[in-house]
Amino acid sequence: MDNFSYCSPTRYVFGKGVESQTGELTARMGCRKVLVVYGGGSARRSGLLDRVTDSLRAAGVDWVELGGIQPNPTDDRVYEGIDLCRREGVDGVLAVGGGSVIDTAKAVAGGVPYDGDFWDFWAGKAVMEIALPVGVVLTIPAAGSEGSGNSVITKLDGMHKISLRTDMALRPRFAVMNPELTFTLPPYQTASGIADMMAHIMERYFTTTDEVETTDRVAEGVLKAIITEAPRVMADPCNYQARANIMWAGTLAHNGICGCGRKEDWSSHGLEHELSALYGVTHGAGLAVVFPAWMTFMASCQPGKIAQFGRRVFNIENSGNDRTDALAAVKCLKEFFKSIGLPVTLGELGIDNPDIPLLVSKFHEDKGLPFGPYHPLYPADTEAIYRLML
Amino acid sequence: MDNFSYCSPTRYVFGKGVESQTGELTARMGCRKVLVVYGGGSARRSGLLDRVTDSLRAAGVDWVELGGIQPNPTDDRVYEGIDLCRREGVDGVLAVGGGSVIDTAKAVAGGVPYDGDFWDFWAGKAVMEIALPVGVVLTIPAAGSEGSGNSVITKLDGMHKISLRTDMALRPRFAVMNPELTFTLPPYQTASGIADMMAHIMERYFTTTDEVETTDRVAEGVLKAIITEAPRVMADPCNYQARANIMWAGTLAHNGICGCGRKEDWSSHGLEHELSALYGVTHGAGLAVVFPAWMTFMASCQPGKIAQFGRRVFNIENSGNDRTDALAAVKCLKEFFKSIGLPVTLGELGIDNPDIPLLVSKFHEDKGLPFGPYHPLYPADTEAIYRLML
Repeated sequence: MDNFSYCSPTRYVFGKGVESQTGELTARMGCRKVLVVYGGGSARRSGLLDRVTDSLRAAGVDWVELGGIQPNPTDDRVYEGIDLCRREGVDGVLAVGGGSVIDTAKAVAGGVPYDGDFWDFWAGKAVMEIALPVGVVLTIPAAGSEGSGNSVITKLDGMHKISLRTDMALRPRFAVMNPELTFTLPPYQTASGIADMMAHIMERYFTTTDEVETTDRVAEGVLKAIITEAPRVMADPCNYQARANIMWAGTLAHNGICGCGRKEDWSSHGLEHELSALYGVTHGAGLAVVFPAWMTFMASCQPGKIAQFGRRVFNIENSGNDRTDALAAVKCLKEFFKSIGLPVTLGELGIDNPDIPLLVSKFHEDKGLPFGPYHPLYPADTEAIYRLML
Repeated sequence: MDNFSYCSPTRYVFGKGVESQTGELTARMGCRKVLVVYGGGSARRSGLLDRVTDSLRAAGVDWVELGGIQPNPTDDRVYEGIDLCRREGVDGVLAVGGGSVIDTAKAVAGGVPYDGDFWDFWAGKAVMEIALPVGVVLTIPAAGSEGSGNSVITKLDGMHKISLRTDMALRPRFAVMNPELTFTLPPYQTASGIADMMAHIMERYFTTTDEVETTDRVAEGVLKAIITEAPRVMADPCNYQARANIMWAGTLAHNGICGCGRKEDWSSHGLEHELSALYGVTHGAGLAVVFPAWMTFMASCQPGKIAQFGRRVFNIENSGNDRTDALAAVKCLKEFFKSIGLPVTLGELGIDNPDIPLLVSKFHEDKGLPFGPYHPLYPADTEAIYRLML
């Protein structure tokens, strides 16, 4: 186990009807006027946005709105939000939505008090120390951004999709989580969210750090819960309990508790970010294609933790051969993804003629060379992994 | 899953040598002069106290000391600490030790800004909203107080041992956790700490709240890690990795993550608190006696969750009969406790002639009638459970 420093200060307010507490929670974080960030029309059509703004009004909190945030959110909307906040004297940001909305809200929150270009933080030219306080009303369990200090934004110029990790600045102060708000998610989006949260755990689980039994067991536990609850959610989208377990698992997957004391990898996220930047695929669905390919490659050169994952999470019998069990784990994972309606090849993802050389070069341009602590990837490795997705 | 609100704001600074960061962390929580609370002489003899105060000095933080805190800490030392803080103008409390030291530090921190008798909070006559900030340098992984908002104090007048739970007021701002500091713990204390942390998880796990799969799996994961790492720690007290895994498990056991979304029980802790108040036994060793007895009783009337515990944590094959599997789980747990040198009967605990009627009456006097959400205990039940410890 490596030394670590971990703090997850977000207050999670979880359960039926909890969105009515949004105004009070926003006022308690010291805000008098917030930017309410949301996505497509569903937050408005469902009446959620009205309930949230009613709650703000009742708590004496004023607001302005930034709507229409798209999946794989882009820097242009962040600049727009920063301008709006400055013009309107906003002192906090409230995200009503899923990962794209939350990540945009965070980027705006970090950009407002910064004199330079907000992209400096994503480009590694500046370290974010402060931000406006951020609150979240979560509608999509997937990205885990409600409990993380991270934000993924795509720069339109060059289509670079970059993740910023902050220790504290961008951790939401609160996350309001009502599983009922997820009943109407389409099956493909539900399934993609499940793949995304599993990937967040696996990026942390596949580590070369030895002797992290406690964190391993927590990670395996959350993965097992997801695998149990996912078919129930797919079969019955209005099953409150299954939705609740999935929603809470999505937060634990990414608030850092599954990473304590070890090096994390994040190669698969990097490989997927290039796919969604170039081809606009749904992030979680992309991960369902990327992760089995990455694991298949690793079964040859670094199978130990992949085999342990198979034995402990999918109850694969120990054959005594790590590579055999790692490949069996890949098979189980693919079957699981297929069973909830996800693609496991680039073709199934709708990318018939992937430009693999471009994907490889952009991956290393964005992530460096080599990349990935679990088993460092050079371009030939990266290309092999992309080819395993065909 | 029930609605819940959860926030664990403590920063965990974990690993080799991290106690050197204590001064900086204390200064960062806004303190200029702290009360350093510690226990017997080992913190001084080992040089830890000097390293901690050197670190305070380097960070420009002054301090006064309250030493000699005993296991099962008592209200007299809390009054002494409160007086000292007020006299010396102290603005924060730093605990250097295990649960008894931390709980005393917390009680002092809550008492200083309160005009009345600090015991009002423990007696349920007042609700604690504010306290001086508390920092922790942990030396004993057991009580989990480094990550909880709780404090257990015994009132000498009547020997009432009462636990106060606060949502936020008493959560430590930081916990410095160096597993090396635990190398010198005697085997009995190490084992008792292991029983204590397991009990913290089990009090949350044995619930009548349905459909808490995600929280169940996390709880089972931490229990499994403890069961794996405990024999390694007992066999080789200086095994850093095993000590590290046990130490981190002890925090996760009690910072609330294993209780999210469900009713918790806490009968066994209540039953044990009467034992330690009357007979001065080590809390964790007492729990090793109490928990199997409580589970044996529950196998008759509410076996479901005990059976699940046996199947998932101890890999007992599902016989199809909950009661059978619950009793098998008790057997496994007792064997585990015995294997690490713990008592599993009152006699082995050194209590040859327990005053069971007095224990029963004090339990219900302190806890109410009936007590315990899992299966409410009336005096006849409580007596039966104490008799199962014989």
